[in-house]
Amino acid sequence: MLTLADVVRALEGLYPPETAQSWDQVGLVSGDLEQPVSRIHFAVDPTLAVIEEARALGADLLVTHHPLLLRGVHSVATTTAKGASVTSLVVNDIALYVAHTNADVASPGVNDALADACGLGAVEPLAVVEGQPLGRVGMLPAPVSLSAFAQSLYAALPRAAGGIRVAGPAEASVQRVAVMGGAGDDMFGAARASGADVYVTADLRHHPVLEAREESRGGTPYVVDAGHWATESLWLAGAEQLLRDALAAGGRAGTTVDTHISTLRTDPWEFAVGAESPGGTP
Amino acid sequence: MLTLADVVRALEGLYPPETAQSWDQVGLVSGDLEQPVSRIHFAVDPTLAVIEEARALGADLLVTHHPLLLRGVHSVATTTAKGASVTSLVVNDIALYVAHTNADVASPGVNDALADACGLGAVEPLAVVEGQPLGRVGMLPAPVSLSAFAQSLYAALPRAAGGIRVAGPAEASVQRVAVMGGAGDDMFGAARASGADVYVTADLRHHPVLEAREESRGGTPYVVDAGHWATESLWLAGAEQLLRDALAAGGRAGTTVDTHISTLRTDPWEFAVGAESPGGTP
Amino acid sequence: MLTLADVVRALEGLYPPETAQSWDQVGLVSGDLEQPVSRIHFAVDPTLAVIEEARALGADLLVTHHPLLLRGVHSVATTTAKGASVTSLVVNDIALYVAHTNADVASPGVNDALADACGLGAVEPLAVVEGQPLGRVGMLPAPVSLSAFAQSLYAALPRAAGGIRVAGPAEASVQRVAVMGGAGDDMFGAARASGADVYVTADLRHHPVLEAREESRGGTPYVVDAGHWATESLWLAGAEQLLRDALAAGGRAGTTVDTHISTLRTDPWEFAVGAESPGGTP
Amino acid sequence: MLTLADVVRALEGLYPPETAQSWDQVGLVSGDLEQPVSRIHFAVDPTLAVIEEARALGADLLVTHHPLLLRGVHSVATTTAKGASVTSLVVNDIALYVAHTNADVASPGVNDALADACGLGAVEPLAVVEGQPLGRVGMLPAPVSLSAFAQSLYAALPRAAGGIRVAGPAEASVQRVAVMGGAGDDMFGAARASGADVYVTADLRHHPVLEAREESRGGTPYVVDAGHWATESLWLAGAEQLLRDALAAGGRAGTTVDTHISTLRTDPWEFAVGAESPGGTP
Amino acid sequence: MLTLADVVRALEGLYPPETAQSWDQVGLVSGDLEQPVSRIHFAVDPTLAVIEEARALGADLLVTHHPLLLRGVHSVATTTAKGASVTSLVVNDIALYVAHTNADVASPGVNDALADACGLGAVEPLAVVEGQPLGRVGMLPAPVSLSAFAQSLYAALPRAAGGIRVAGPAEASVQRVAVMGGAGDDMFGAARASGADVYVTADLRHHPVLEAREESRGGTPYVVDAGHWATESLWLAGAEQLLRDALAAGGRAGTTVDTHISTLRTDPWEFAVGAESPGGTP
Amino acid sequence: MLTLADVVRALEGLYPPETAQSWDQVGLVSGDLEQPVSRIHFAVDPTLAVIEEARALGADLLVTHHPLLLRGVHSVATTTAKGASVTSLVVNDIALYVAHTNADVASPGVNDALADACGLGAVEPLAVVEGQPLGRVGMLPAPVSLSAFAQSLYAALPRAAGGIRVAGPAEASVQRVAVMGGAGDDMFGAARASGADVYVTADLRHHPVLEAREESRGGTPYVVDAGHWATESLWLAGAEQLLRDALAAGGRAGTTVDTHISTLRTDPWEFAVGAESPGGTP
Repeated sequence: MLTLADVVRALEGLYPPETAQSWDQVGLVSGDLEQPVSRIHFAVDPTLAVIEEARALGADLLVTHHPLLLRGVHSVATTTAKGASVTSLVVNDIALYVAHTNADVASPGVNDALADACGLGAVEPLAVVEGQPLGRVGMLPAPVSLSAFAQSLYAALPRAAGGIRVAGPAEASVQRVAVMGGAGDDMFGAARASGADVYVTADLRHHPVLEAREESRGGTPYVVDAGHWATESLWLAGAEQLLRDALAAGGRAGTTVDTHISTLRTDPWEFAVGAESPGGTP
Repeated sequence: MLTLADVVRALEGLYPPETAQSWDQVGLVSGDLEQPVSRIHFAVDPTLAVIEEARALGADLLVTHHPLLLRGVHSVATTTAKGASVTSLVVNDIALYVAHTNADVASPGVNDALADACGLGAVEPLAVVEGQPLGRVGMLPAPVSLSAFAQSLYAALPRAAGGIRVAGPAEASVQRVAVMGGAGDDMFGAARASGADVYVTADLRHHPVLEAREESRGGTPYVVDAGHWATESLWLAGAEQLLRDALAAGGRAGTTVDTHISTLRTDPWEFAVGAESPGGTP
Repeated sequence: MLTLADVVRALEGLYPPETAQSWDQVGLVSGDLEQPVSRIHFAVDPTLAVIEEARALGADLLVTHHPLLLRGVHSVATTTAKGASVTSLVVNDIALYVAHTNADVASPGVNDALADACGLGAVEPLAVVEGQPLGRVGMLPAPVSLSAFAQSLYAALPRAAGGIRVAGPAEASVQRVAVMGGAGDDMFGAARASGADVYVTADLRHHPVLEAREESRGGTPYVVDAGHWATESLWLAGAEQLLRDALAAGGRAGTTVDTHISTLRTDPWEFAVGAESPGGTP
Repeated sequence: MLTLADVVRALEGLYPPETAQSWDQVGLVSGDLEQPVSRIHFAVDPTLAVIEEARALGADLLVTHHPLLLRGVHSVATTTAKGASVTSLVVNDIALYVAHTNADVASPGVNDALADACGLGAVEPLAVVEGQPLGRVGMLPAPVSLSAFAQSLYAALPRAAGGIRVAGPAEASVQRVAVMGGAGDDMFGAARASGADVYVTADLRHHPVLEAREESRGGTPYVVDAGHWATESLWLAGAEQLLRDALAAGGRAGTTVDTHISTLRTDPWEFAVGAESPGGTP
Repeated sequence: MLTLADVVRALEGLYPPETAQSWDQVGLVSGDLEQPVSRIHFAVDPTLAVIEEARALGADLLVTHHPLLLRGVHSVATTTAKGASVTSLVVNDIALYVAHTNADVASPGVNDALADACGLGAVEPLAVVEGQPLGRVGMLPAPVSLSAFAQSLYAALPRAAGGIRVAGPAEASVQRVAVMGGAGDDMFGAARASGADVYVTADLRHHPVLEAREESRGGTPYVVDAGHWATESLWLAGAEQLLRDALAAGGRAGTTVDTHISTLRTDPWEFAVGAESPGGTP
Repeated sequence: MLTLADVVRALEGLYPPETAQSWDQVGLVSGDLEQPVSRIHFAVDPTLAVIEEARALGADLLVTHHPLLLRGVHSVATTTAKGASVTSLVVNDIALYVAHTNADVASPGVNDALADACGLGAVEPLAVVEGQPLGRVGMLPAPVSLSAFAQSLYAALPRAAGGIRVAGPAEASVQRVAVMGGAGDDMFGAARASGADVYVTADLRHHPVLEAREESRGGTPYVVDAGHWATESLWLAGAEQLLRDALAAGGRAGTTVDTHISTLRTDPWEFAVGAESPGGTP
């Protein structure tokens, strides 16, 4: 029987904790290294619903991209959502393991998955931050219109209610693409410096985007907000496969492990009103 | 002839600078107090295009909600967008005046305009921050579905490509509404404490919204991201009228002033792909 | 049946959380406000052994003086002792409630209990810190020798392996006594200013004591280190009784609650070698 | 005749000031480099009594381990003990020289002396902090019981009223020993990482020891608090001899210097009550 | 015989220590409260030469305006000038007492003395900083030319080699005068706000003066740098008299005290070359 | 025709921006890289009068040593002097370029010019700060009296109303000279360590100079305050020539550029009263 220690060792081989950014909190959040693990559930966010999904599936281990306790907690009473989540994990004997910015920089990792979804080749790091390759930049096989690029990215991503928002003229031609899964509004400078025609990231607020657009004087790089959850959930299938392979490679004979990927959409938006298609009609 | 000093005096009467938040930068950004003012242009953002619009209209003064130089600058060379904007204002003799968080807290101000667009009555402050009433909370005349509320808010706002995103069940009934124009993700606690069924604000990122939704255990307050530019541009017409009235009241005989509101949409998004209507179809 | 919410309400009446020092972390650390509470266990420290003692007794709630999570945690995995403690509490359905500096300043509270053990009358606050009365100072009925005072305090305290350490001449006469349960080495100035002949506290290190002795030029206030755990465990019996009374007063008919005080010594020292009696012999 | 400059040069050869920790204050505290030095007094603490002892002996120089002015002073008036100490040194023409953390890390230095007193062989640094080897870890010739180890350490140390306090079972067997003279409660992690069975240090407070014991789940490393003054006074004899040798080696013919070691116990505790021997009896 | 305690009490009555600015270090720097005081020496700076002057005069107490140890010291060895000064004071039994910003704000105090030297009437505080009246502003009996004002101030001040430097046209007329003894380059705003025609202070550097002159567009307030030592030494005679009076009023019969004012110029400049008279000739 | 981009490239070759100190703000402050440049004006300070001088001369570019916007600005309205300066530059199409600490450390640069004016040979860096050679130290051909040295330096500098102030005996002999143009009161330690007989710098305040004089016990290095503007204006002629050469070397055939050096004295002092010649007479 595999133990949590075995799986943690395999995960740390794939996503070494020391490659995480200094402000991040990755690794084991709940569980006991000696507990057996036979079913592993993967998700972007450790929400209460995802923990319940894991419990219903009989999972022993939940692997998520986002930290549950990025800020330290002084209580796990169920009066707060964080406390209720910790309590639910512990009561249900579900270990939680987080691979966050260490999964972002890994190769293959979150940003490689996003580069693949964009259809990029000749992929390089977008920037090196704290010694790690953050984001990616690469080339489409041929120039396409910004609108066609967005449509095709939409098709490659899981669906989220907010859809994909684009700053730039629909008919502009793009070929060089920078990507950064999740919140990338501190990387506009790197995107511009990379020569990208378009920068795909998420969680973009008015001022950073508007300032980046002003700095580009309306030109490239155009900007695509493809959704925080959507861009990062691309990583789950690859991580699942890598972990299965690693456990098989390192595993003792006769041990098997079941894996699942969450079917819940943890993007918080449930519907939208009035978003405008390239032609401007809602 | 009115001078800039006259208009600044009137604006400071409407939006006293000392009511701005301590981190904010409001007031006169360019211009000379003795220059004559006969045409005033209003906009949310002092972008290069808005400055050009003001110039083309022959405006002497641009009044915006957003600061141009929130962070101090050490250069106004045109190599940066901020420098190019300052240069363009100065070269074209256009004074720039900013009313930002002092316009947010004013009554009537940005948040009153948003409360009106929502159709609220019995409006109170949402919270008091640094001694000023930030945000508003009030009641709809009767309960409506969350989906209908969003549709009606959409109809009341200027159109932006990203539309309106909603977190909460389309059919849920809402009546008590909290609003905060612009970026309001540090006010989720106040929205919850106010007993609101739905919180309308903008610039919402994945983690704050998801954590707020978890803290609400999926219940109220539901969340609406109605767009930073859209929610704040509601203020422009009221501000224009108040300033006209103030200048008329305080004015010397024979002085007239022309006013305009920008027709440019400075929301950076130009189109969207795949946003889902209440029924879930893009 | 009483719920945790009922008991928390009673505890907050006795030890209002807002009277805790700003750096402290008090209140509910684990548990669900709706869980029933029929057995309450009291202890100074929420150690693994104390949690096991609570579990063995069938306690639903553990009330301790010391915080479990004074520093925030990012993980409750059992790889750390803090994580193992949280996990054990949650798995065993034991709520943890902490009354720390709010219990120090309360009247009656930790320092009143210590003043009683010293036999003091005419007790006043030693100092006011962040608006709360911290420590106590009072008078013995008659002067006694420092040595006799220490012997009598020893007799009144639970036994700890380190015993009681005294700085000052054994035969010196003392009557005015300052007390501060737990670690009090930042209150030497207040003790001196209070006119105390002797200051009873704990957790004293070389430099603060030596500097205080130098500042006193070998005179009063003499110093007694009576043990962190020993001085604070005096509070448990009073807190137990106050809570029983509060629950009885506020309680619904037919609800009863069992209470226990830990019999474990959580002072970490297990034995000593060579400590010298007043005459100087080990 | 030797001057103070000669002796300072010799001391800086033995304990280079640049090897002190960054927060420390070492070197010459009073005196004139040109004053003659014929009598040197050594002590752990520059207390008023030690300064008087030096004066009575006719010492020109006092060498101590602890800084007199670790925190800067703005006055040397005799209204404070620090001021009275400085005044007494200056009035009596006694230079004061401090070798603190530079003596801790030196080889031989404070921690080597403590390792010797423990009877350790195969001694290595316990940790490297700011580039210097802090603490030591080594092996006893054979395993002994924790109680026997404490008894034997007690016999090797100067007597202090507080004796030696031990956390761990009296009969447990120990062989690998970590040591850190003076206050070592920030080195529990290093002690655990070194594989030590027991960690000998001093100035230990309730929470750090209890947390370290919890982290060890009651196992090794056990903890011995052997007294701040006692563990550091071991260094004096070696330092005296090294300085005599250095002065003789570097000295001009015909110069001689007298040296003394303080016979005063500057540990502040004068007696104890109720400390428990291994069997638990006070 | 008067003791130092008596004199300190009198000085604290004249210049209460709690009226000093928060960053300042005032009060007793060396000495013993029980030492007799029969001769008191006054000076602006406690330099080595001033201390020697006090010693040669047989003074028991030196009262200075400037702190000796504004920054805390960790050593009083004579290797540093500060250490040599402390050593010299202590060896020669000279107490040092400092009245700095508490003497600046006192009435009468340093700035009143400077206002008197300028010939001002209707004197008010220039600004209130940390609750104390800092600087003064008042009126000359009649307007005079800036050049005549400077000449007359020069005549009223003790001579310093650097003379008086003036920014402003020699023939400009001035009547309202702001003053701030010592370094006043953080009070240009207050000087401007006070409506002063000229601001007299000292220790002025290029950038603050130039920026103040630019802010004034070459107009008022003009600026006079009258020398740090010169402007503050005006205070000495008044302080001497006030202290004599206070001691006489509070004194016991038969006690007398001798007082002196330093004749040393502690302004560091010894000569100048090429300074230009109002007409521009050196 | 040369563009601003051409000239900026040449200036950055002479004074690389990355050699500026980290707190500094150098480079282009106003202007557009594509604007033509045919006339360049040099000055120490970008005051309103200097900008007007540049305008009157028809200059396209002003090169100054001192930053206009060392502290960031949030407004360029003409209500502040900084805003008025920026406005005047922009309105008059005058680009402003600053070479500050990068010109200080350059070879040849500000400090080389000052060393030349002193007549020094064998010139070396005075100190290395942030990796750059700050200040210079060198030898006079033969020893001269301090008074003669000051006279000769006076003759070599542009005249300023404050003249040159000297701390040290007029007749003392000096040969080794340290220099630091502008404000150098944080380099007294480096000057002393360099073995200089005299340290020439500017903007010296009472306390730093007096403390440096005390630390030198009245001996070397003596101190000369030669004026902030005067010491730095020496650099202008060399910079003008270097830029002309660089443009000629890199230039395209047929492009010519006119250069001027400001004739305005931006030292703020206009006259002095009572400064004393070496013999002590004003």
